[in-house]
Amino acid sequence: MKNRILLEEKIKEFLSEDLGFGDITTDTLIDDNSMAEAEVVFKEEGVLAGVDEAATIFELVGCKSHIVINDGEAVKPQTIVLEIEGPSKSILNGERVALNILMRMSGIATATKQVLSLARNYNPKIRVAATRKTTPGFRYFEKKAVKIGGGDTHRFRLDDCVLIKNNHLKLIPSISEAVRRVLDTVSFTKKVEIEVENSSQAIEAVEAGADIVMLDNMEPMEIRRTLRELKRRGIRDKILIEASGGITIENIVDYAKTGVDILSLGSLTHSVQAIDISLRMKNIHR
Amino acid sequence: MKNRILLEEKIKEFLSEDLGFGDITTDTLIDDNSMAEAEVVFKEEGVLAGVDEAATIFELVGCKSHIVINDGEAVKPQTIVLEIEGPSKSILNGERVALNILMRMSGIATATKQVLSLARNYNPKIRVAATRKTTPGFRYFEKKAVKIGGGDTHRFRLDDCVLIKNNHLKLIPSISEAVRRVLDTVSFTKKVEIEVENSSQAIEAVEAGADIVMLDNMEPMEIRRTLRELKRRGIRDKILIEASGGITIENIVDYAKTGVDILSLGSLTHSVQAIDISLRMKNIHR
Amino acid sequence: MKNRILLEEKIKEFLSEDLGFGDITTDTLIDDNSMAEAEVVFKEEGVLAGVDEAATIFELVGCKSHIVINDGEAVKPQTIVLEIEGPSKSILNGERVALNILMRMSGIATATKQVLSLARNYNPKIRVAATRKTTPGFRYFEKKAVKIGGGDTHRFRLDDCVLIKNNHLKLIPSISEAVRRVLDTVSFTKKVEIEVENSSQAIEAVEAGADIVMLDNMEPMEIRRTLRELKRRGIRDKILIEASGGITIENIVDYAKTGVDILSLGSLTHSVQAIDISLRMKNIHR
Amino acid sequence: MKNRILLEEKIKEFLSEDLGFGDITTDTLIDDNSMAEAEVVFKEEGVLAGVDEAATIFELVGCKSHIVINDGEAVKPQTIVLEIEGPSKSILNGERVALNILMRMSGIATATKQVLSLARNYNPKIRVAATRKTTPGFRYFEKKAVKIGGGDTHRFRLDDCVLIKNNHLKLIPSISEAVRRVLDTVSFTKKVEIEVENSSQAIEAVEAGADIVMLDNMEPMEIRRTLRELKRRGIRDKILIEASGGITIENIVDYAKTGVDILSLGSLTHSVQAIDISLRMKNIHR
Amino acid sequence: MKNRILLEEKIKEFLSEDLGFGDITTDTLIDDNSMAEAEVVFKEEGVLAGVDEAATIFELVGCKSHIVINDGEAVKPQTIVLEIEGPSKSILNGERVALNILMRMSGIATATKQVLSLARNYNPKIRVAATRKTTPGFRYFEKKAVKIGGGDTHRFRLDDCVLIKNNHLKLIPSISEAVRRVLDTVSFTKKVEIEVENSSQAIEAVEAGADIVMLDNMEPMEIRRTLRELKRRGIRDKILIEASGGITIENIVDYAKTGVDILSLGSLTHSVQAIDISLRMKNIHR
Amino acid sequence: MKNRILLEEKIKEFLSEDLGFGDITTDTLIDDNSMAEAEVVFKEEGVLAGVDEAATIFELVGCKSHIVINDGEAVKPQTIVLEIEGPSKSILNGERVALNILMRMSGIATATKQVLSLARNYNPKIRVAATRKTTPGFRYFEKKAVKIGGGDTHRFRLDDCVLIKNNHLKLIPSISEAVRRVLDTVSFTKKVEIEVENSSQAIEAVEAGADIVMLDNMEPMEIRRTLRELKRRGIRDKILIEASGGITIENIVDYAKTGVDILSLGSLTHSVQAIDISLRMKNIHR
Repeated sequence: MKNRILLEEKIKEFLSEDLGFGDITTDTLIDDNSMAEAEVVFKEEGVLAGVDEAATIFELVGCKSHIVINDGEAVKPQTIVLEIEGPSKSILNGERVALNILMRMSGIATATKQVLSLARNYNPKIRVAATRKTTPGFRYFEKKAVKIGGGDTHRFRLDDCVLIKNNHLKLIPSISEAVRRVLDTVSFTKKVEIEVENSSQAIEAVEAGADIVMLDNMEPMEIRRTLRELKRRGIRDKILIEASGGITIENIVDYAKTGVDILSLGSLTHSVQAIDISLRMKNIHR
Repeated sequence: MKNRILLEEKIKEFLSEDLGFGDITTDTLIDDNSMAEAEVVFKEEGVLAGVDEAATIFELVGCKSHIVINDGEAVKPQTIVLEIEGPSKSILNGERVALNILMRMSGIATATKQVLSLARNYNPKIRVAATRKTTPGFRYFEKKAVKIGGGDTHRFRLDDCVLIKNNHLKLIPSISEAVRRVLDTVSFTKKVEIEVENSSQAIEAVEAGADIVMLDNMEPMEIRRTLRELKRRGIRDKILIEASGGITIENIVDYAKTGVDILSLGSLTHSVQAIDISLRMKNIHR
Repeated sequence: MKNRILLEEKIKEFLSEDLGFGDITTDTLIDDNSMAEAEVVFKEEGVLAGVDEAATIFELVGCKSHIVINDGEAVKPQTIVLEIEGPSKSILNGERVALNILMRMSGIATATKQVLSLARNYNPKIRVAATRKTTPGFRYFEKKAVKIGGGDTHRFRLDDCVLIKNNHLKLIPSISEAVRRVLDTVSFTKKVEIEVENSSQAIEAVEAGADIVMLDNMEPMEIRRTLRELKRRGIRDKILIEASGGITIENIVDYAKTGVDILSLGSLTHSVQAIDISLRMKNIHR
Repeated sequence: MKNRILLEEKIKEFLSEDLGFGDITTDTLIDDNSMAEAEVVFKEEGVLAGVDEAATIFELVGCKSHIVINDGEAVKPQTIVLEIEGPSKSILNGERVALNILMRMSGIATATKQVLSLARNYNPKIRVAATRKTTPGFRYFEKKAVKIGGGDTHRFRLDDCVLIKNNHLKLIPSISEAVRRVLDTVSFTKKVEIEVENSSQAIEAVEAGADIVMLDNMEPMEIRRTLRELKRRGIRDKILIEASGGITIENIVDYAKTGVDILSLGSLTHSVQAIDISLRMKNIHR
Repeated sequence: MKNRILLEEKIKEFLSEDLGFGDITTDTLIDDNSMAEAEVVFKEEGVLAGVDEAATIFELVGCKSHIVINDGEAVKPQTIVLEIEGPSKSILNGERVALNILMRMSGIATATKQVLSLARNYNPKIRVAATRKTTPGFRYFEKKAVKIGGGDTHRFRLDDCVLIKNNHLKLIPSISEAVRRVLDTVSFTKKVEIEVENSSQAIEAVEAGADIVMLDNMEPMEIRRTLRELKRRGIRDKILIEASGGITIENIVDYAKTGVDILSLGSLTHSVQAIDISLRMKNIHR
Repeated sequence: MKNRILLEEKIKEFLSEDLGFGDITTDTLIDDNSMAEAEVVFKEEGVLAGVDEAATIFELVGCKSHIVINDGEAVKPQTIVLEIEGPSKSILNGERVALNILMRMSGIATATKQVLSLARNYNPKIRVAATRKTTPGFRYFEKKAVKIGGGDTHRFRLDDCVLIKNNHLKLIPSISEAVRRVLDTVSFTKKVEIEVENSSQAIEAVEAGADIVMLDNMEPMEIRRTLRELKRRGIRDKILIEASGGITIENIVDYAKTGVDILSLGSLTHSVQAIDISLRMKNIHR
């Protein structure tokens, strides 16, 4: 999940959004020749994510950066995660965008790791996945943060994997027919997932040849019943089962205990609690 | 705060991020000629924001849209805010991006209105402002949502207004000197704001001719003392006073009671709780 | 496989590449008010592909267009496939780009259909797939043409599906280890394909849990032996088998007869024989 | 024919087309610190073209490259034309785009050199030119390959040179009138070419002051007759004569023998036979 | 010289440059539903240029426009050249960019027509040409304005025509050698121009086969002598002669009388005197 | 006023505008390995502006550059302001764009310094400001040149500061009402300027709380009367007074003497007299 060209293009766009025609305060008060060192510090506990991106930002504005802690590590308050050295102006130019990326990505990684740990206590092989409920234009960073937190990125785009939803099924005679059509038409390199609402639909989907079945908005008890039924028919292992809809940190254990393979949560990316991170200038030389 | 050209460009970028080379599920299952109606529905209470943007998205993908509720209104659960009509494929193509924008912008507007109401109970003329702690690439939408919620957008960019911060002051002999320099150098069309940490700095800033003083990370009691001192010197009304740092929904009333003119909160944009909003397809005609 | 936004952006880029600062001949000789009709005609036999794109081009330059024949149909020489009506200048502005797209896409669709028919004579369920050996910047159009000709698009991008190749295996202790790592790390929404060079590697790949095995540069006889061995072990049906490398229209029947699931050919896109198609202006009104 | 800025922009676009959000296979299996060497090898005979572009690609992804053979040279099978050194991941990221460019450009250069040699055997000063029948978005590379093969690029864009075609003449009273208008209106820095269908039109064009006359779809015998007639009138040397339409490798000698100055062939760029070229990783260090 | 796609792209860039995140004054004071009419008026005498571009701007922001006077006409003070009708906000959004384009383009067209008239009094067939001394990013508009004023655009780009300058000749043994090389290497569709400094160089250039000779920084008397020498040798009519360097409105008649074919002036585009043009809102309906 | 990312993007656009597919003359005549030195020389007296941009251009095309004179200094004819070293081809590729930027920016800085000096003779604290009458796409450079010449940039964009104009007032009941609305609605970080036509309007604007009043098209005598009236009411010092409309180098002293704070002139950017600057190649090594 790395595309340096895309990353640089995005960062340039982000910096321009913040700079406009230039930082009128810094350009007035700070001399072009003033050099400084700075450090990026966690102000609260969390899982670090985005440090590569932050380092790239400072390099793009003309500084050197040294990654002290790697993405994915749990970080204590007051820990320095990144050190920077370069023109004072450049550090101040990159500061806000770097912190905005770090705060959000670390917030996502922290939440992901937290729900994943909870779930794995009861289901050691379970995956926790994100959805497409991301901030427009920022999906690459949010999905990457989910992965850094140990989660599964799920689809990045609508061409990543087939996902037949309720709205599609309104137009097709049956689940079997829908699955058959995509198996016939879509490239064999793609998996086929389908969203179902009850046990009998799940069975129909598996028998039609789907690769993944998403149990949408089903209560844990219903999910268990469905899994039992699939086992009884000897088809549980032919398929991955994903539960989705209404799963939160409060109830995730109940869902994990059902024995599904994947739990997906929109809140991982749509309702992020940012981690407080700041940049400290030091050793400024005029 | 409207720039249709910028908006269309952004929306195209967002749609491409989600579509990639195309929606392989919809393109396989839904006929080009299938037409449908759809409605966008609030699943929980909140302040609506982003309905113009959502309507524009559906128009850009080839649908007609009808705005039922305007931005800024408080919306009850199960309320329809937008109606759409057009090719089923186009509706499904625009769905996720439209909802992602609505959910975030409405989350921001809802939080803004909530803290603003709390603060105004005790200080009817106070403003609540956002910061530059926004999602990179999405600032236009987040700042607009703050405004829809009744808040103040503060700076969009580093060239919007001078804001002399602690890091700048490390390089300048004094506050007066820093203010004097920017007044001499920066265009007269720009306001000059300066961040201070105590009462005597605040006084120095006002006397040097700053337009706005930001009291950074000061406790409510300290803020009151500073305001009293400014009044005593007859310079309270020459200046706008903004308090910033550590202000949350829990303590905002304490800050509002101090009598400052503006309270700014990074959390309005960096830690958004999205409003749950969904799209319902109906009346599909193959 | 449709993304209208991407399509319009690409077409604008293509038109600008051809127009530069404007068509100096047409702008001098043709009056702004001159209106005309035109028709796009096949000069030789082939499978039509690209007619939607051609119609979009003429609409973008300000003409109306009427699709006479749909993509995917076999077309006889002298057949009109598209009719256009609009300003003479606009027709001439769009002509070359529209024809260049039609000629290439139809060439690809024609070749794809031809090899597919040959292969299906002996293996009615076989798929013929393209590779990533496409013209840089033009992949969307070339992959779409393969699909119109009845072929499988295979990967559009390096994030579409895992494909472990020889060069990767040089760095990993074993095939099983490589497959295990990707199954652990990559999203469950992705299929896992692996390139192998002999029968025992194929078996190892299947047992490790790969979804697709690509038999690279293996002779038909070797392929048969591998398939027999997989069947003997009862694992033939757990996997898709793709043969690749050195497959041409001359030997494709030999490969099809082996019983593999997919044949992939780089030549479908890297060595296109364009179909001769031209535009005829008529009924020009000054 | 070099514009490094345009080249880098194009290459970034091409790499992004191939990479999407990143190479999920390589990113999973190959360590960031793994370094390697690689070589680009011709698998069949051909004229090398695109080696500068390939080297630039590898440099843009962070490798060093060493050009072993220069563009334009005839290369034997198994010859190394380019050596690369750098992170294994970067080499794999650039591989496909670099090969796709090399294979096509070398295919074009090889075909160009072949027809040019044939033609020059009988007409040592003749030029072989390409047309605007290029792959949309890829014209720069295809025209450059024609030039590397010894051919003439002809027009890149519609503003490069005037070319009055049949469709223009339908709207103008006469050839003389058309030529007169462009001579009056178009910048004196532009040449004026006109497409004619017979001998008397050719004479009219020359007398009207055209710089180049294109004999369109005329048989070799007709072309000879036209040249004789121009000589008889003493105006053969005032003009360049280009033959176009239906010229192939099979009949090119017949056309060359007529004594025209230029032969143009659309097939040089619209129906390319790619040269088989591959990349060999070696000396990989984890 | 028209490329609508390029034009729209440029105009969007220009509007965004002016609008930023939106017109904060208009968005606050003017109602979305307020409709108005407006007219664009010349405040001083001049030649109109840019009215198509201005009309396109107002159409792009959502207004209707009616062109009252066409490009190229001489306009008296207080004359209305364009009428607009649409949302008041949209008119105000497009106003400044439209006027900036009209004022500059009309300034250029006016100056071009003036010097051309002066020159043609004494040399009725002479051309007046612009140079590449244009405002970066705005060349299309400035060259078009020169043409509207009756002038010749000369080269738009460095690939438009060969122009061998003094700096090139420092590296080549002789003028003949330089001309020979470009004739051998550059496409036959390109003209070859060469800059010379005296009569003998001019003769060498003509004899070597150049199409155009530019007499650089030569006094009118020297130019006459050179032309006489060329005539004496019977080669005056084989070539176009351009004089360049130090030509101004004060001395242009002296240069025109020499009998050269073209006079080129950098000042036409590098030192523009804008025409005063303004927009008058009227009939505003809230 | 510096944004390196924006600057590089703009410069790449400018270079591509000039280069097209490449410099056909230089690419033919100059060897890739030829190295040279060059110097940029003022041919007439003026204030230097743009030397940072010129240096950046040469660095972007692969040369080293050394700034001899800094922006803002008065330069005598024949003075070298910038030295360059690098491949001959690269120097020639960057030459025209660099000179076009330097000539225009220096022209603007020169004119700005001249009018500012005149005005300050009589009013030592007065500012001279530019307007939004800039060349579309080139505003950053023109505003920066004004600043280098000692002037004030005024608004870059319509979101920089509120400026209520005549056209807005046609739709609002009164000046006080308009000012009140913007004070209520627009961010407190923005200044509020209003254009008035007479003394009583000016008083109303000041009393309503505007920050800046622009006296539009008022004669010096009327301006004096207005200032006297404001002083009489004790409100002169609460406000900045800008005079605009019809101010030229001929009458600027009369306006300066009135005692206003700012004079703004559109001509600084809309009617630039370029400074003659050229590039001299030297020490060329093949």
